Amino acid sequence: MQLLVINPNTTASMTKKIGDAAMRVALPDTEIVALNPMNGPASIQGYYDEALCLAGLLEIVEEHPKADAIVIACFDDTGLDAVRCISDKPVLGIGEAGYHFASMLSNKFSVVTTLARSVPALEHNLMKYGLAARCVGVRASDVPVLELENPASDARRIISEEVAKAIAEDHAEAIVLGCAGMADLVESLSKEHGLPVIDGVVSAVGLCETMVRLNLKTTTLGGYAAPF
Amino acid sequence: MQLLVINPNTTASMTKKIGDAAMRVALPDTEIVALNPMNGPASIQGYYDEALCLAGLLEIVEEHPKADAIVIACFDDTGLDAVRCISDKPVLGIGEAGYHFASMLSNKFSVVTTLARSVPALEHNLMKYGLAARCVGVRASDVPVLELENPASDARRIISEEVAKAIAEDHAEAIVLGCAGMADLVESLSKEHGLPVIDGVVSAVGLCETMVRLNLKTTTLGGYAAPF
Amino acid sequence: MQLLVINPNTTASMTKKIGDAAMRVALPDTEIVALNPMNGPASIQGYYDEALCLAGLLEIVEEHPKADAIVIACFDDTGLDAVRCISDKPVLGIGEAGYHFASMLSNKFSVVTTLARSVPALEHNLMKYGLAARCVGVRASDVPVLELENPASDARRIISEEVAKAIAEDHAEAIVLGCAGMADLVESLSKEHGLPVIDGVVSAVGLCETMVRLNLKTTTLGGYAAPF
Amino acid sequence: MQLLVINPNTTASMTKKIGDAAMRVALPDTEIVALNPMNGPASIQGYYDEALCLAGLLEIVEEHPKADAIVIACFDDTGLDAVRCISDKPVLGIGEAGYHFASMLSNKFSVVTTLARSVPALEHNLMKYGLAARCVGVRASDVPVLELENPASDARRIISEEVAKAIAEDHAEAIVLGCAGMADLVESLSKEHGLPVIDGVVSAVGLCETMVRLNLKTTTLGGYAAPF
Amino acid sequence: MQLLVINPNTTASMTKKIGDAAMRVALPDTEIVALNPMNGPASIQGYYDEALCLAGLLEIVEEHPKADAIVIACFDDTGLDAVRCISDKPVLGIGEAGYHFASMLSNKFSVVTTLARSVPALEHNLMKYGLAARCVGVRASDVPVLELENPASDARRIISEEVAKAIAEDHAEAIVLGCAGMADLVESLSKEHGLPVIDGVVSAVGLCETMVRLNLKTTTLGGYAAPF
Amino acid sequence: MQLLVINPNTTASMTKKIGDAAMRVALPDTEIVALNPMNGPASIQGYYDEALCLAGLLEIVEEHPKADAIVIACFDDTGLDAVRCISDKPVLGIGEAGYHFASMLSNKFSVVTTLARSVPALEHNLMKYGLAARCVGVRASDVPVLELENPASDARRIISEEVAKAIAEDHAEAIVLGCAGMADLVESLSKEHGLPVIDGVVSAVGLCETMVRLNLKTTTLGGYAAPF
Repeated sequence: MQLLVINPNTTASMTKKIGDAAMRVALPDTEIVALNPMNGPASIQGYYDEALCLAGLLEIVEEHPKADAIVIACFDDTGLDAVRCISDKPVLGIGEAGYHFASMLSNKFSVVTTLARSVPALEHNLMKYGLAARCVGVRASDVPVLELENPASDARRIISEEVAKAIAEDHAEAIVLGCAGMADLVESLSKEHGLPVIDGVVSAVGLCETMVRLNLKTTTLGGYAAPF
Repeated sequence: MQLLVINPNTTASMTKKIGDAAMRVALPDTEIVALNPMNGPASIQGYYDEALCLAGLLEIVEEHPKADAIVIACFDDTGLDAVRCISDKPVLGIGEAGYHFASMLSNKFSVVTTLARSVPALEHNLMKYGLAARCVGVRASDVPVLELENPASDARRIISEEVAKAIAEDHAEAIVLGCAGMADLVESLSKEHGLPVIDGVVSAVGLCETMVRLNLKTTTLGGYAAPF
Repeated sequence: MQLLVINPNTTASMTKKIGDAAMRVALPDTEIVALNPMNGPASIQGYYDEALCLAGLLEIVEEHPKADAIVIACFDDTGLDAVRCISDKPVLGIGEAGYHFASMLSNKFSVVTTLARSVPALEHNLMKYGLAARCVGVRASDVPVLELENPASDARRIISEEVAKAIAEDHAEAIVLGCAGMADLVESLSKEHGLPVIDGVVSAVGLCETMVRLNLKTTTLGGYAAPF
Repeated sequence: MQLLVINPNTTASMTKKIGDAAMRVALPDTEIVALNPMNGPASIQGYYDEALCLAGLLEIVEEHPKADAIVIACFDDTGLDAVRCISDKPVLGIGEAGYHFASMLSNKFSVVTTLARSVPALEHNLMKYGLAARCVGVRASDVPVLELENPASDARRIISEEVAKAIAEDHAEAIVLGCAGMADLVESLSKEHGLPVIDGVVSAVGLCETMVRLNLKTTTLGGYAAPF
Repeated sequence: MQLLVINPNTTASMTKKIGDAAMRVALPDTEIVALNPMNGPASIQGYYDEALCLAGLLEIVEEHPKADAIVIACFDDTGLDAVRCISDKPVLGIGEAGYHFASMLSNKFSVVTTLARSVPALEHNLMKYGLAARCVGVRASDVPVLELENPASDARRIISEEVAKAIAEDHAEAIVLGCAGMADLVESLSKEHGLPVIDGVVSAVGLCETMVRLNLKTTTLGGYAAPF
Repeated sequence: MQLLVINPNTTASMTKKIGDAAMRVALPDTEIVALNPMNGPASIQGYYDEALCLAGLLEIVEEHPKADAIVIACFDDTGLDAVRCISDKPVLGIGEAGYHFASMLSNKFSVVTTLARSVPALEHNLMKYGLAARCVGVRASDVPVLELENPASDARRIISEEVAKAIAEDHAEAIVLGCAGMADLVESLSKEHGLPVIDGVVSAVGLCETMVRLNLKTTTLGGYAAPF
């Protein structure tokens, strides 16, 4: 099957990292097509960036009608509803994917994300998905998205401290990492803190593959009816 | 004061109608600047149309920095959060404005909108605003937006029947009309059914003028912090 | 238009202060009639005081049938539902008015009020209005209502500290001041803390004027049907 | 023990009926003191009536400091919070009592009350008590309170039909009768429809006796702290 | 009347303690039959223990068809729904009983229980009962159930500290003690902290007696319909 | 990988059917071990049956420590929490699995299940999972579980009618079939009604395989901490 993995921002190095992570977990017969728009914001942190990447994101979807499923590889799940209107294939956001797995593995989970500016958008998504009651905290680490790409930064230590607080203060039983750029921290944070740490990218890839295999499709009734 | 009233779709006749409605209720010293994007969907019905009008909408906002407040004249409140990130002026969607007034005038209200495809987007907004508990029904009349412009259509009768059902079945005490194009039905429906019928356009105009007069501004903290 | 602004407690100096605040923001053609009952509690802090001011409050409403709208100038929104039963004019409580504006200007807000005794009543109101999900904290400053009238008191400093905590601990993006007596702190607190600080009195005055101008009326169906 | 049972309306025949019902279920050593205010509304149907009976209700409480517990025998639970501020004895409304027992006997229940005007007040109470999620419908029978006293009226048949609809349409597993005046229908309706039918008066009497026996008292912290 | 009080764990000393507590508050004509299963876990702390005690618990119920009401004396309310399917008598869990009384005596309450492992099960119960919104915290004291039986342990001091935190941090107005084994601390903790402290065992006994006296029965419709 | 698929009831023909369905969708290298307890109820319809199958269910889990993941193949998700306490492998109920996929494919979904007696248990699960807000109706078809095995029965027609009502009355955009025994109706119902129809068994198998491949494990903190 072919999986279209769209990084809605224009930072190609991040697209590469996301595509590589997707390939590492994909089934042998899954082709990963990882793309990003040519124009739009370099990173997506909050509502304004979200709005500006939508046209490019939808264009990529429309140019790839053969994809068997679509992953939106931004933790804000930007454009999720719009893409579902123009495709009856499975479409998942990586935030959504992470929240669902966290809900299957724990009684309650926390999210550790980048900037405070992104928190309300994630809280709105959790409410929309129904999973707000399962989430005991969306925590900003104040590490900007692009700083995660910088090996010299203090990002891992800061994020790990936030995970520790989520366990102690929120009584979180699992952690969802709130940015596609945090994927390579999953294993070490999980070992360090002794609880499931979940990355949205691989979660969404695995869920999409499964839905394709089970022949599950996005509804074409109601809110996701085709617009033309 | 100057009020920027943006119709996010590209149907100029609707922009004119909206601008005229705004002018009829505006204070003597309020200047109404009613605009629509040059490119984008002709009407906004559901998530896909919403996504495609965002770039044009934000461009208009950025080109009018002198506006004292901004009304987004689409009942989906398209782009509301994104616009609040780039302006500390009051910014209101017409759906939002209608829901707030309905909440101040009744114990519970219903929404009568155009197509079923639009309902989930409105339900998500109500949940985000916190007002879902006040709304006892979002009802689709199955009258498309542009049909409302057609005097020969049966639109008024169909919408009136839906209002009657909202009173009988939902026990609605007030009605919010779920489309900018329904504004001219307010008075006659209110008289016919004996309850408040609320139009979002004039509601948003009045609320924006009031916030400007009271010197109330959109927060610049948290989710609405400036993106650059 | 004539706006009836009722301070439900019997402290005339507070009625004067409230009336003056209302007049400062009112439209040129708005007449403010600020009154308080002759008998009842000197301040309203919690459920018992609320109950005892109701008869006097309703009497004032019944004696002023020509008012175009009614503001209940107590942050508990005392008697709001009862007044709506005997008037089809717009009727607003100042708590309610403040919460609605805070919801239009921020993703989430906190309330800073007087005594802990008042907190559950405010929390119940927020739940009834549907806006509890938008409010991230109702904080008691432990400054009694009448102490706010005393210039020698430490009230401003204490309230400012509570605002700082609301930002740091609740991640509040806006503040609603939870007492009519705090109105003169709005501007300085907003400047000091860099976020919208909202006073219920002027909010309710502005909202009532707007509803009168838009010809919006309280429903006479259901829970607000006339009792005789 | 002495149980103060207050009918907040001024209809003495209803007070007698309530007092008699209380006595029939009371423990041998319980003294029932059933009273009503001298002045106020003849029946309580909605918010306005509620407000007007409060002063008389509180006066009765203050004149009976020796009561071991207090029942407010109006299904709106009028003045419940205010009475709890001036007494650390158990204080129960009959609506509240009925909802709690219904929650202990079924997964979900419906309320059958008198007029549509009363419905929002009951819905607000259910939300405040936390039990809204257990209640699948508050149904107005359109039988006015005082008509229940009239043996020639069609009241029983109409109420029974509403119970049947609650079972068929709401999937209610138990019924709470939403008016003190419906108490004598409990047994026959329960037999006819084969499910628990709950009267608030005897529920509140039983619960108050139990709390007195267990030495349980109303808190004096927070919202119920004494006002003087 | 005969009250069947079932301790679902196999620790006979705890069954004796629970039975004694029940007898101290029971009405003169109430016979308390306190029993525990022969096989199963020695204490119930979390989901796994709950599951393993169910068969023994149901067997006891089936062997005592003459009981007029049934108390499940485990704070997890283990098996509550299953027992209600095979009995139309009143059936109460001690957690459930404590939460309902706390809701009648305060605006909001906290629970102080034993181990962190038990917290999610209690939170799920509170959500199911509808009372989650009334509960401002379920706090683990980290005192294991059986340690409560050990007079040399530090249990009382630790629990008292947790009560103090619930008041200061949660603004709890009442406390429910989250384990049958904490019953003998009620009076001293209530005096020390000046608020209602509620034990589930005596609460459930009193509530069951009251329901029997009022002839209230568990529904046999819907989810509690008899399984054979 | 080895997947342990437990049918908690004792009807071997249903276990065979479930195992076959699992095998049809499993990955080539997945071994399906489908088992049922020797003792316990023949079908699970409501709370009582749930309780009685738990001991047998847990025994199977304990006897198969090598399983890489566990599916509980009863739509009530019986014993889900208890199994998670004794395994850090992925553990899914088929109800839970179906609800999560429905949430990823539609804005709102309905459940069509067997008997009315089962409805409250499913509603409680949806509330616990957080997904109650996504589900617009749990509908009983009144077809008993074992009747689904009878080819002469009218089961398919009745269930199809309930699906039609869910679309028309609930505005469901997807359907979850609420019983393991309905799995073979998925394809034909989906075609007939033009929307996603979801079977829990294959959903849970696919999700478990994915979690194993992604190395996701059940938390061992908090409510799922090991009991010994």
